[in-house]
Amino acid sequence: MSSSCNYEKNGYSEISNFQRFEDTTLAKPETFSPALLGVALESGAAKPAYQQLYEQVRDLILSGRLPSGARLPSTRSYSKELGLSRTTLIAAYDQLVSEGYLEARRGAGIFVSQFSPEHLMLVNRTAPPVLPKPGAARRRAARPVPFSIRATSPADFPGAEWARLLQKTWRGPIAGHFGEPHVEGHPGLKVAIADHLRTWRGISCSEDQVLITSSSAESIDLISRVLCQPGDKVWLENPGYMPMRREIVEKGLEPFYVPIDREGMMVNLGVELAKSARMAITTPPRQFPLGMTMSLPRRLDLLDWARSTGAWVVEDDYDSEFRYEGRPLAALMSMDETGRVLYLGSFSKVMFKSLRLGYLVVPPDLSSQFHDAHAELGPQASSVAQPALAEFITSGQFAAHIRRMRRLYARRRALLLDQLLEKCSGLVTPQPANSGMHIVVSIEPILRARHSDVEICRRLRQDGIEAQPLSSFYAAGFDPGAAGQGLLLGFSGFEEKELEVSVTALAAALSDLAAA
Amino acid sequence: MSSSCNYEKNGYSEISNFQRFEDTTLAKPETFSPALLGVALESGAAKPAYQQLYEQVRDLILSGRLPSGARLPSTRSYSKELGLSRTTLIAAYDQLVSEGYLEARRGAGIFVSQFSPEHLMLVNRTAPPVLPKPGAARRRAARPVPFSIRATSPADFPGAEWARLLQKTWRGPIAGHFGEPHVEGHPGLKVAIADHLRTWRGISCSEDQVLITSSSAESIDLISRVLCQPGDKVWLENPGYMPMRREIVEKGLEPFYVPIDREGMMVNLGVELAKSARMAITTPPRQFPLGMTMSLPRRLDLLDWARSTGAWVVEDDYDSEFRYEGRPLAALMSMDETGRVLYLGSFSKVMFKSLRLGYLVVPPDLSSQFHDAHAELGPQASSVAQPALAEFITSGQFAAHIRRMRRLYARRRALLLDQLLEKCSGLVTPQPANSGMHIVVSIEPILRARHSDVEICRRLRQDGIEAQPLSSFYAAGFDPGAAGQGLLLGFSGFEEKELEVSVTALAAALSDLAAA
Repeated sequence: MSSSCNYEKNGYSEISNFQRFEDTTLAKPETFSPALLGVALESGAAKPAYQQLYEQVRDLILSGRLPSGARLPSTRSYSKELGLSRTTLIAAYDQLVSEGYLEARRGAGIFVSQFSPEHLMLVNRTAPPVLPKPGAARRRAARPVPFSIRATSPADFPGAEWARLLQKTWRGPIAGHFGEPHVEGHPGLKVAIADHLRTWRGISCSEDQVLITSSSAESIDLISRVLCQPGDKVWLENPGYMPMRREIVEKGLEPFYVPIDREGMMVNLGVELAKSARMAITTPPRQFPLGMTMSLPRRLDLLDWARSTGAWVVEDDYDSEFRYEGRPLAALMSMDETGRVLYLGSFSKVMFKSLRLGYLVVPPDLSSQFHDAHAELGPQASSVAQPALAEFITSGQFAAHIRRMRRLYARRRALLLDQLLEKCSGLVTPQPANSGMHIVVSIEPILRARHSDVEICRRLRQDGIEAQPLSSFYAAGFDPGAAGQGLLLGFSGFEEKELEVSVTALAAALSDLAAA
Repeated sequence: MSSSCNYEKNGYSEISNFQRFEDTTLAKPETFSPALLGVALESGAAKPAYQQLYEQVRDLILSGRLPSGARLPSTRSYSKELGLSRTTLIAAYDQLVSEGYLEARRGAGIFVSQFSPEHLMLVNRTAPPVLPKPGAARRRAARPVPFSIRATSPADFPGAEWARLLQKTWRGPIAGHFGEPHVEGHPGLKVAIADHLRTWRGISCSEDQVLITSSSAESIDLISRVLCQPGDKVWLENPGYMPMRREIVEKGLEPFYVPIDREGMMVNLGVELAKSARMAITTPPRQFPLGMTMSLPRRLDLLDWARSTGAWVVEDDYDSEFRYEGRPLAALMSMDETGRVLYLGSFSKVMFKSLRLGYLVVPPDLSSQFHDAHAELGPQASSVAQPALAEFITSGQFAAHIRRMRRLYARRRALLLDQLLEKCSGLVTPQPANSGMHIVVSIEPILRARHSDVEICRRLRQDGIEAQPLSSFYAAGFDPGAAGQGLLLGFSGFEEKELEVSVTALAAALSDLAAA
């Protein structure tokens, strides 16, 4: 049995799923012709064609001109009419499906998703300006052990170039690097981040809205000081990122754990649990740890709740650069015209973990309040690497590095999936997700009947294999049962050969555990 | 009136005060002859002569062979007997006086200080090994404005060399810089810090006791998590460093504000306030913001209290590199043989503020507990500059930079003092202190009667002059009255010409305020 065969059988595909759906609908008449839709692409525009198409179709949906349930032309016929490559169309459709604007129904075609007209009122109808970039552990361990999650890949980091930029930025006038003048962060880095967010996330923001922080913890600290009072209720995702919970509890805020389903945070349950919450902290681009993208209806529900109750939504976008199908998603913040969304970004995944640089983007009218609070508290981010990082981004090397790592991680992920299906079937089953730096596998009954995921991970660690138990990402007292039993297996930091060997070891260890 | 005349008149002197005391006692007989004391210096030893003398006299005092109240030979006669330069003797005496082992009494001579024999039991009698080094804002402001405190001096920073080290350390194998393997910090930096502490502070520690942190806030966070429970009582200095208070309160600890007198923290009052406190956080090398060194009797009282009650002492040594008379002080931690002292160090002052690197030194038996907690919480320090900083220290450039900055800051401080005495007399009066990056001035009655220090600083800010009101460093509800009214004037970040111009502006502004 070939690995690609395994791969397809389980619903994983490096090409878009809806290409398959389409094949059955090629002969059917199109509901909306491209001409009727009024879509027209500028050739020679700075914006890539897929991006123009994505934005125009998105606007048609948001304006109601493409109604819920409407069927879209197939990529094959549409590409002929528009005179575009099918690849371009697939990229645009893929993006729209990922974000929930479109739905692919097997054997039927591509349709506009169902959501209510009220939702549309909330959404920013003008597409954000897009400016394409030029050239667009363990303690004392020698290095991370498979399958540590969130490991970066030092061998693939452009160290010499980074070294050159560090030297260059410290050789010239350095008064600005000393900290006092720019408590908010290096001005060039803030501009570079704002540009990056426009291109990669569709967030239209000025550099004044950007605060450089050392971590999401510092960003959350700032947010809670500026926007919250002790005792305020906060929605957190369940399962979710544990340190976030500790921070919220330690700040005297009251956490409410909102369950996740395949569309992401279940906003209706959040409203039931604590409609009056002051804030929701969520991972719309890629849920942590489960990996799904929050659907458009959920996004709209969330923005609706925030607008109607005066709550805040914190969008934690910790690693959506590593998306292996379609283009990077537009951020929730890019859809928000009510100014209720704050955005957390990080360089830990794309650059390296111990860089300790991230950022917080706040709505324009909160900018000066946040900068004052930041100055008062004392910014935590080191200035040493900020000018070099700004140049790294501005020169296009950052985007090139992301693309390189995305290709690399896509290969590693595909290999890990193949290997798991080949060697561990009957023991664990990979769960779908098309992004990130780890895979979640569920545990088959034969193994689950004997051991909890926590116990399995403890035993694996004895064999030198790192895995995180999925159940440990659930809040205490919220036992999701079998659905919450699983393993997180990181692939990003390990070479293909190392992953192969490690899956063999994993399979042997799991077989032993299933037998004992 | 010459400026040096002003200077002497007010008790400031770049040479030791006790030279003056001695002059009146030259003819008197010596109580203890050098031979009787058994002091003998090795010539050609790695250790400088003043250091040998300092250590031997300290040991004589600690062993009781030089009893409390004993008078010491004058430097003039003693230097003849030992065949040493008088400068060497003055350096050693100066150090011993600064640390409270000796007292200079005007017109009477130099005496061994009064402290009880119980105190001596606590003190480590073996001198720590000394390994001499080879070659031993405001928001959006363009740069800091006089008299901002804690400003560093970019023009005097060896930027090109720093740039070279950054490049060098990132050009080679970089896997170790990525964060996962060395959650506790770059190993080479920990070794370099341990060596530095041996040489400069007399702290004998291994690199395993060193944790690299991003800030004293991270260190305090770690300490409170490992050693404290919510509700525990903590002594803090009053006046003191405000962010420390916020951190303590936010961690659910109960602060007790212990007054400061000219010998530093009034330990007896701390015992009265909260004998059962879990921890005392203090600045023995240089009290912040007042600037005095904690006397030896107070140090011994503090260690005595900690030992007898099982409390912890956190020694915050934030800037004692910048000591302009005598040698750097031995740290409180170097005197502690009961393992109750933790030491906080920072590179913000010696290097630059936004480097965001500091360290925590813990007693050996707490080392593994602290490292585990640090790994669990996630270390905050960026790895980018750690290898370069390690080389900067190891190569001796760090020590050279400290010496250079000490000379520079000594000149700036002397100039600021002269200028204040010349231009602002009758309005404000500089308070004695022989170290640090700022001067505290008290406010004369004519000005104090009309305006609080807070109001004065507000008005000065309107004229573009930065000053910190002393009263703002006192805990709320502890009004020290006139003694707590003063201004903190930073000199470290400003050239002499700039200080001159700024004092002229200050004098004019203060005169206006005294008249209005």
